[in-house]
Amino acid sequence: MAQTDEKERIEQDKRLKNNLSHIKNKIIVISGKGGVGKTTVAVNLAYALSLANKRVGILDIDIHGPNIAKMLGIEQSRAASSEYGIEPIDVLPNLKAISIALLLENQDKPIIWRGPLKMGVIKQFLSDVNWGTLDYLIVDSPPGTGDEPLSAIQLIKDVTGAVIVTTPQDIAILDARKSIYFARELNIPVIGIIENMSGYICPHCHKEVNIFKKGGGESSAKDFKVPFLGSIAFEPEFVELADRGTPFVSFKKELESSKAFTRIVGRIEEFIG
Amino acid sequence: MAQTDEKERIEQDKRLKNNLSHIKNKIIVISGKGGVGKTTVAVNLAYALSLANKRVGILDIDIHGPNIAKMLGIEQSRAASSEYGIEPIDVLPNLKAISIALLLENQDKPIIWRGPLKMGVIKQFLSDVNWGTLDYLIVDSPPGTGDEPLSAIQLIKDVTGAVIVTTPQDIAILDARKSIYFARELNIPVIGIIENMSGYICPHCHKEVNIFKKGGGESSAKDFKVPFLGSIAFEPEFVELADRGTPFVSFKKELESSKAFTRIVGRIEEFIG
Repeated sequence: MAQTDEKERIEQDKRLKNNLSHIKNKIIVISGKGGVGKTTVAVNLAYALSLANKRVGILDIDIHGPNIAKMLGIEQSRAASSEYGIEPIDVLPNLKAISIALLLENQDKPIIWRGPLKMGVIKQFLSDVNWGTLDYLIVDSPPGTGDEPLSAIQLIKDVTGAVIVTTPQDIAILDARKSIYFARELNIPVIGIIENMSGYICPHCHKEVNIFKKGGGESSAKDFKVPFLGSIAFEPEFVELADRGTPFVSFKKELESSKAFTRIVGRIEEFIG
Repeated sequence: MAQTDEKERIEQDKRLKNNLSHIKNKIIVISGKGGVGKTTVAVNLAYALSLANKRVGILDIDIHGPNIAKMLGIEQSRAASSEYGIEPIDVLPNLKAISIALLLENQDKPIIWRGPLKMGVIKQFLSDVNWGTLDYLIVDSPPGTGDEPLSAIQLIKDVTGAVIVTTPQDIAILDARKSIYFARELNIPVIGIIENMSGYICPHCHKEVNIFKKGGGESSAKDFKVPFLGSIAFEPEFVELADRGTPFVSFKKELESSKAFTRIVGRIEEFIG
């Protein structure tokens, strides 16, 4: 029995290595604090790259709050198995996604799992999902520096870099600093910091309101000598679009935030060279 | 060696049981999604109860993003040991707090721990912190249904109930439903749902803006037949006050959100009866 387990583990490690060898860049999106728009950034980053003709996969490693499927408008789809493994859901011809939400019967039910079980699922997502050849795998993490990002980073081994998402208020910044230390501790390059929800335009009077203050992300980037990728203003169309499953970079190109996002993607591609 | 470990475990379990026997009500504040204001709710709930002359403790079980100390303005304090165990920090004469942030040297450094280590710390917070006699212990969790809330609930055993915090947008509501299932699965009464960031008053034109839409928390409560405790509007003074470490219920009684909060506390006390 123990021998069979060991054999299966070795087989899985082989599949993992083989699978990852066809993926050129692996970017992990992290944040210290929850609710800063990590998933919005991950989804729009993946979309923007795929619109630029890259082959992109998006992997949701948030096991307790998997929102990638809903934000991509594929929450009714269910991933099936084939002779090549678990088939990810095609969002666009060159954009695939996998999430625990795409494997569950009932999306209301929570996953009440401890760390080791979560690690097992994340390993399967890397070893047994038929990603094929990709230019980019975007990994969307839950907030914090716990089991999920730690597992993903240790399993992937050659992570290209981390994108750190924050909002401008002090408490989020305090947590973003933790994310920088986390990346350094694990020897992952920090691609840069994105300041999300940076200012808000009132739809009635069109004046700017700094709901969460402003500029904290940029000054933090300076303090820690990591690149600042840009700030994205808070536009209410976001929430609407995210809830309807339509990433704004593709559907609302005229939004200030879409333009900001296109610049950010340019900087990320520059970093990767 | 194994015997000493076993003896120490039995001793710790005794201390835990004894400690908890002096705490009347144990309320856990949870949310499916991050960034919905769980910590703000926990801190203001604790403050409001202590202003009503209750003896209150606040326990931060968010190990990766511990923000209780900063929000209470005690982030410069460090918890010390005494003959009675770890001494929590006194925020008010009848309000004590403990958080991993109050035990760390450098607040920028992240805790890169997996589940079992986190469970160990949470157990210590319950068994070895000198809480004394309390009317309420408010437990602030990280988002999701993972190791931390699971550990706390299993260790406390007789949790009085869960307060579920959400924002009104669909994605947060989806995750809040998971929290309800989570509580039910673990046999904890749901005290109710709080809808946070429900509308925003523009400081320029004073018109209301529904940044995250509105009403999702209330309709979710109805669907699941759990009490709706109230909605709290988004006021920019919040962010300022939270960053400065001054809970709004105590310092800004004239704010709409403070009044909403006082009503919520009334409903919670009614539930507990």
